[in-house]
Order: sequence, then structure tokens, then C-alpha cells
Amino acid sequence: MTEMSLYHQLASAIIDQIRNDSFKPGEKLPSVRALAKQQKISVSTVLAAYGVLEDRGFVEVRPKSGYFVRRVLNKTPKAPSINQSTSHPQKVTTPQRVMEVMRDGSSQQFIAFSVAVPGRDFPVVHQLKRSFAKVVRNETFLGIGYDSPKGNQPLRRQLARRAMDAGILVSPDEIVTTSSCQSALGLCLRALTKAGDIVAVETPTYYGLLQLIEAMGLKAIEVPSDPHAGMNVGALKLALEQWPIKAILTIPCYSNPLGSLMPDDQKRELIDLIYHYDIPMIEDDIYGELGYEGTRPKAVKAYDHKGQVLLCSSVSKTLDPQLGVGWVIPGRYQEQIEYQKFLNSISIARLPQLAIGEMLAHGGYERHLRHARESYRQRRDRLTELLLEHFPSETRFTQPQGGFVSWIQLPPGTNALKLYLEARQEGILISPGELYSSAANKYQRSIRLCYADAWTPEREMAIKTLGELVSQQLEDHS
Amino acid sequence: MTEMSLYHQLASAIIDQIRNDSFKPGEKLPSVRALAKQQKISVSTVLAAYGVLEDRGFVEVRPKSGYFVRRVLNKTPKAPSINQSTSHPQKVTTPQRVMEVMRDGSSQQFIAFSVAVPGRDFPVVHQLKRSFAKVVRNETFLGIGYDSPKGNQPLRRQLARRAMDAGILVSPDEIVTTSSCQSALGLCLRALTKAGDIVAVETPTYYGLLQLIEAMGLKAIEVPSDPHAGMNVGALKLALEQWPIKAILTIPCYSNPLGSLMPDDQKRELIDLIYHYDIPMIEDDIYGELGYEGTRPKAVKAYDHKGQVLLCSSVSKTLDPQLGVGWVIPGRYQEQIEYQKFLNSISIARLPQLAIGEMLAHGGYERHLRHARESYRQRRDRLTELLLEHFPSETRFTQPQGGFVSWIQLPPGTNALKLYLEARQEGILISPGELYSSAANKYQRSIRLCYADAWTPEREMAIKTLGELVSQQLEDHS
Repeated sequence: MTEMSLYHQLASAIIDQIRNDSFKPGEKLPSVRALAKQQKISVSTVLAAYGVLEDRGFVEVRPKSGYFVRRVLNKTPKAPSINQSTSHPQKVTTPQRVMEVMRDGSSQQFIAFSVAVPGRDFPVVHQLKRSFAKVVRNETFLGIGYDSPKGNQPLRRQLARRAMDAGILVSPDEIVTTSSCQSALGLCLRALTKAGDIVAVETPTYYGLLQLIEAMGLKAIEVPSDPHAGMNVGALKLALEQWPIKAILTIPCYSNPLGSLMPDDQKRELIDLIYHYDIPMIEDDIYGELGYEGTRPKAVKAYDHKGQVLLCSSVSKTLDPQLGVGWVIPGRYQEQIEYQKFLNSISIARLPQLAIGEMLAHGGYERHLRHARESYRQRRDRLTELLLEHFPSETRFTQPQGGFVSWIQLPPGTNALKLYLEARQEGILISPGELYSSAANKYQRSIRLCYADAWTPEREMAIKTLGELVSQQLEDHS
Repeated sequence: MTEMSLYHQLASAIIDQIRNDSFKPGEKLPSVRALAKQQKISVSTVLAAYGVLEDRGFVEVRPKSGYFVRRVLNKTPKAPSINQSTSHPQKVTTPQRVMEVMRDGSSQQFIAFSVAVPGRDFPVVHQLKRSFAKVVRNETFLGIGYDSPKGNQPLRRQLARRAMDAGILVSPDEIVTTSSCQSALGLCLRALTKAGDIVAVETPTYYGLLQLIEAMGLKAIEVPSDPHAGMNVGALKLALEQWPIKAILTIPCYSNPLGSLMPDDQKRELIDLIYHYDIPMIEDDIYGELGYEGTRPKAVKAYDHKGQVLLCSSVSKTLDPQLGVGWVIPGRYQEQIEYQKFLNSISIARLPQLAIGEMLAHGGYERHLRHARESYRQRRDRLTELLLEHFPSETRFTQPQGGFVSWIQLPPGTNALKLYLEARQEGILISPGELYSSAANKYQRSIRLCYADAWTPEREMAIKTLGELVSQQLEDHS
């Protein structure tokens, strides 16, 4: 028996013991050294086995204490199934529903799981406020005419520094600031396409992208996405062979709504593909810094030496959605993006750029990220517990490794839009699956939940209510 | 002889005396009481005559001192001539030149008359800073998720209040905030048109509009504009008869670059016309509050009871171009504009909206406007003096009654682009006329100068240098 199968075998045995409650939630596992001795195997084999358990979410490491069985998971959630056929190019609809979701989400009257906004309970709010106060006090942000078309230089310096974490080497002058990630994506699409062109996106994908594509008179080809690995590169290749696709638009690191993370070798394949077909790729990296693993995943752009990837991001998911600071790293499309930014707004607000630059330089951003990532992981786990407890057993859902949205596939016989409407009556907001595809009737049994906010008894009760509404649908159906 | 003709006659007599140097620049006119006694006429007649002199720019009032002859104006400048033929629909060009002008304008190395930014020496900068500091200290601008798609409510309340000055009655909910006026104009064009459509604009007009039209795949019909009265409504009517125009885009109050102000009866005609053809009109009102007369002119939208005018503006000309706060009053297109705003940026920065709301409510905005208007009037007068002194006598130029840009038509035989390039070599930035039309070779003898900044010996010398470069061209030509 090889070393590899040995540690897998050990991991499986422990998972069985967790499942049959021999190891109870919260209980400490034997120390690595003790288990190695007891089983007469090497310390590194035990470490590898514990690593598998950690990766799969069965145990957690508490520094200087050891490995503990995590709460939850006597049942393993099943990932949602995504239909693996690529769509024909088609138009998008439902702006009214999208605006209803956005309007409701800005109201304080609902218990909201609908709109993807960061947790509101983090101390970073105070750090940000200090950064703003400092900049207002010390910096010249008025009375100096227009800024460079690229945007504020000190901010771009910080962004260039942080891009290195994603494996991207750029100078501050190779970055263009924007007022949001959505605005950055719009600039890219306008620079690269014209009405009638076809753009490839993954499915399911964020409705803001689909609506933008529709509004620009473009057509979307929806390439199936894997709940773990993101856009299916093989399916994309077939689509590229078949259609005159002008650009690819994807969210490789913690996609919205699946939370999938594209593996590095798949990222390399994607680069090979866009080089082969000589078409640009727009990478939405807005969740890239919110992974639960230790190191930040590489961006697809990290593998791009030809400047063919345009990376878009903002601080809307890491800090706050009302800061008005996003950016593009446009590669070879630098001139076009600066021009599109000029057309779109002439210039953008200077003060928020200065304040975010200050925050990234001196405001404890890394500490905030560590705290946020750990909080989101815990909040995902609590959501998992609640879904397992309150939703019918045939419910499938993602276990994202980053970000803060979960994609939930309800049992056959249910309807997500009906759930959305009934929940809204109860004061609970969710995001119905139909928004995430341009194909009519595609995600009729799916919903997206944002779990960024701290769990309160009220929010936990709302998940219970949602589960009851789903069960009721099943009963009515049968 | 009626009372009215009496004071006009008196005013004319004094103007003659100013012109033949009986009253010298800087000299005090007789007191009202003394002149009334001397001429045996009523005090009110003298007051009315002095009012005419003030309106026509011959004298200025110094509080508690009396009426003084202003410098300037022994010659009367001639307005530029605008070719009165409407163009066929056509595409726009020269993004490179536009970006060059924008990039240079953000540099501190030049003496700049090119980009239209407010004066940098006004105390309002400090008031704004206080408003920002107050909002950062007292308001919740973070950790509250997304705002309403309409934008910040306290700001919209202030904007609705101020819109009344322009004759517009709207509730705060009938306003949508944006990140700039350019962004507002873009939202409107996207809501109203699709690629291939024709939009009517005045000529000459601001290059940001022409470039936006081009980039959206639209075509521009250029309707001639009068240096005093703005877009020629008769010519527009002919264009509407001939072409399937989808929207009209105009700057009725202190247009850029002419500084023209459309008379109220012409505004009414314009409304009748858009009602007759049932097409929407986008009104760019960014300079509307910067008139040199006492009362703010009415917007075209003031005469629109059907909601067919979409008014766009921002604080970029009244306060500062880097604040990131603009808005639309979209009339019947409210839903579409909110949706376009969502597509364009999801949401915009909250803090600047709060700070501008605070500034408009308590920051001394009216006092600032009074100060800015008077400064711009004086700076226009100084520009007039300098142009009369240093430019060849065949030069024609506008005398704007608001805003802070002047349109200058150089003598036959000169070339504005050549002047632009030569001036740039000397470290002086101007805006070449070709940017203000989509027709090649249209304004080859015209330039736009921004006179918002205070006159310094260096800036005055730059105008002299420009004049010498023009004279040199004439010599080389002859």
C-alpha cells in the first residue's frame, strides 16, 4: 500500500468515526504524535490525513491546541448539479426583478440574504472612518482640477503592491481606477465589443453581468460551470470552435453565485485557449482576496504574459459597497480603458481613492482580511448546519471556499420564484435563481443566499422559515 | 419724451463719454443725487441709467463708494460667426487629441486654459473640507449595504430644493444621483437610444458629448448655434422634418463652448417642438447656476409638464470636478435611468453625496455662488481686455453671460491646431476648435479658453504669447 493511499485510508476511518459520533463535534482528536505511535505510522502520514480532514471541513486547527472536530456535518451536503450543456447565444431579460431585488436590499425593513454585501459588524468600519478623517485633514483633494485619466496615483501604488499577492506584476501606471467593479466591467466590455457581438460567460453567473451584456446589445453564451472548479474550459473550447466569440467574462476566484475556485492548471488551460483564439478575457476578481485558505489564489491574469486578460475588481466585497472605488488592470488595452473611463465619467471622486490608498497602506487591511475570511468561513459553516437542519434532505448546496454567497438547489417539485415571493411576504429576502441565467426557466429550483452577516436568532429563524416554505411546497406538490 | 427713453438716452450719453475718455477707466461717476440735481431729472431715472451701464459692463458698483468706470471696452469685441447650415448625420473622431488635452490638463507643468475647471482660489474649498469633516465625524456612511438605486436621500432633498430656482418642481424621489454630469448624460443616451440612432446636438458643442455619441455607435446631427441664443430652433425643426432623430442633447444655459444663453421664448419653442415630434430632450445644465445676472435662468425643463426633458448636472463646475457627484432629473424615464445607473456602477460613493448635501444645506453655497459669478464676470472682462490688446484686430470672440469659457475665432489665414501645438511647446494649453465638431475641418480657426482661474502676471503673459503666435501665423501667411 502506498503512502498516499495510507493517509487517505486513515482520513476515511476518522470521518466514519465522526459520522457515527465516536468523535463528537468540538472534541479534540488525538495529537499527531500520539496517533502515529498508536497506529505505528509516520508523523507525516498522520499530518497528511489531518490535512485531508481539514480540507474537507471535518476538523479545524486551533493554534497551539490541536485538531478539533467541527460542529455540523453528520450529513454531507451535496453540491448542486449544473446542467453541462452550453447555451446558444441569447438575450437576457428580467430587469424589473433585478431592480426589485436591489431596491428591497437597500431597505432596512427586511431580513436580507439577497444582495451580496460584506458583514456589517467588522471593526474595519472604524479603521476606514479614521482613514477618511486623516485624508480630509491632511490631503489636498479639492481645488486641483481634474486628476490623471488613470486615477489617483497613491492608490494605484497600493493596488500594484497588492496585485503581487495574486501573482500579478504591474506598475501603478498599468492600473486604471474606476468607481466600482461593475463600472470597470462595463468599460472593458465597451472597449472590446460592439452591439451584436457574442460574449462567453459561465453559468450560473452574476446577474449584473448578464444585464449589462443585454443592455449593450450583446449576446451571452453560457458555458457550464462546476460548483468546485468554475468555468468548464473544455466546454468553452467547443463554444469557441462553434461561435465567433469576442470576449470571455468569468469570475475564476470564488465565483458569484457558486463560490467555485478554478484550479491553477485550469487557469493555465484558459490562458492557452485565449492565446490560441486570440481573444481577450475579462476577469472579475472582486472576491479574490476572500478565500478561506491561507494563501490568496492566483488570478488567471498571473499566467498572462501577453496582456490579454483585463482584471477588474473593487473594495465592495472586502470593505464596503458604498466606497465608490474599483479598478482595472487592462493589459494591452490600457489606452482604450482610459478613454472609456473618460467617456463614462470624465473623472471619479478623488477623496475615496485617497482614503482607500491610506487604508491599504496603513489601515490594518491585512488584519481585517484575516478576520473577515475566518468570520465568513464560520458563517458558511453555520449556514450549512441550518440548511441541513431545516431544509428538506434532497436540498443540494455549495460549500464555498471563499466569498460569502451560497448556491442552493431545492428539491424537485419546488419553485424558487414562488419561494422568493412567499419569503418576501414574510419579510425575508433571497435571490431567485432565474436572475443568474439568460435562459428562461434555467435555475427555477435554485436560490442564492448571502451569509456575510453575523448569525442572530432572527436570521437563524429566517432560514428555518425558508426551509418550512420549501417543505410546504413539496407537500403541496405531492 | 417718456421716462424710459430718458434713462436710455442718459446711459448712451455716458457711454459716449466713456468711449471718448471723458470718463476714464477706474474713475468715479457723479453720485446719483448730484447727477439728478445737475440734469434736473429724477433720482430713479439716474439709477435706471446707471443700471443699464452696469448691465452692459461699462461701470461697476463698489459698495458704499459708488459707480466706477470699468477698465476695457473702448473697442467692442465681435462675436464669432457660426456657419448656419445643419450637418448630415456623421461619425465623430479624434479620441487621441481629446485624451492628450485631458492628460496635459491634469499636469501641473503647464499654464492651462484648456480644460474647463472652476477657479482654484475660492474659499469654498475650505467650506467643502469642513462639510466632509463633519460628515465623516457624524454620519453613518459605511457598513449599511447598498443605498437606494436613486442615491442618497438628503442630497436629493437639497437638489430638489435648488431645482426650484431653475423653475423645476420635483420631489427628491424624482431625482437620481450619479457620479458626474458626463455619467448622467451617458445614462440618458443609453436609456433613450441604440447603436445607429441619430442624436441632434448644437454646434459647436462640448467634445465629451460628441465622443460619447461616437463611442455608443450613434450619429450626431449638428444644428447651428447662435453665440448669444444657443441652438437654432428653426434649424432643429428642419432637421427633425428630415431625419429620424431619436433624442436632442443641448446645453441651453451657458453652453460649452459658446457661453450662449437660450432666451425663454426659444425654450418654449423647443418644448413645443419635442412635444410635436414626441422625442425626448437631454438638457445639460452644468453651468446653469453660473450666470452673471442676478437671477438664475430657467431651465428648458421648467417648461416641460410632460416629463419629456431629462435634466443632467453636477457640482463639477460650481464646486470642484473631483467630487464625484452629479444627477439626473429624468421625468418620465425615471425607471430606465435607475436601471442604467445600476448597470453602470451598481451604486456610487456615499460620502461625497452626504458631504455635498451638507454643503448645499449649511455650507454657504449661495454665498460661494455669488462670489464665483462675480469673479468669473471680472475674469471674463480681463480676458476681453487682453484679447483686444494682444490678438490681431480681426479676432472675434464671445462675451459669455455665464460660465467660464470663451470661444475665439482667429483671423482668416490662421490655423487653430497649429496654434495649439505651438502654444503647447511654450507650456501653454488651449483647447483646439476641431474637438467641438464631428465634421472634419469645421472649427479650424477657433479655440476655447477657460478663464476661471485668477489672472496672474504669468497667465496674462501667456495670453500675450498666444496673440503673438497668432500674429506670427498671419505674417507667415501673407
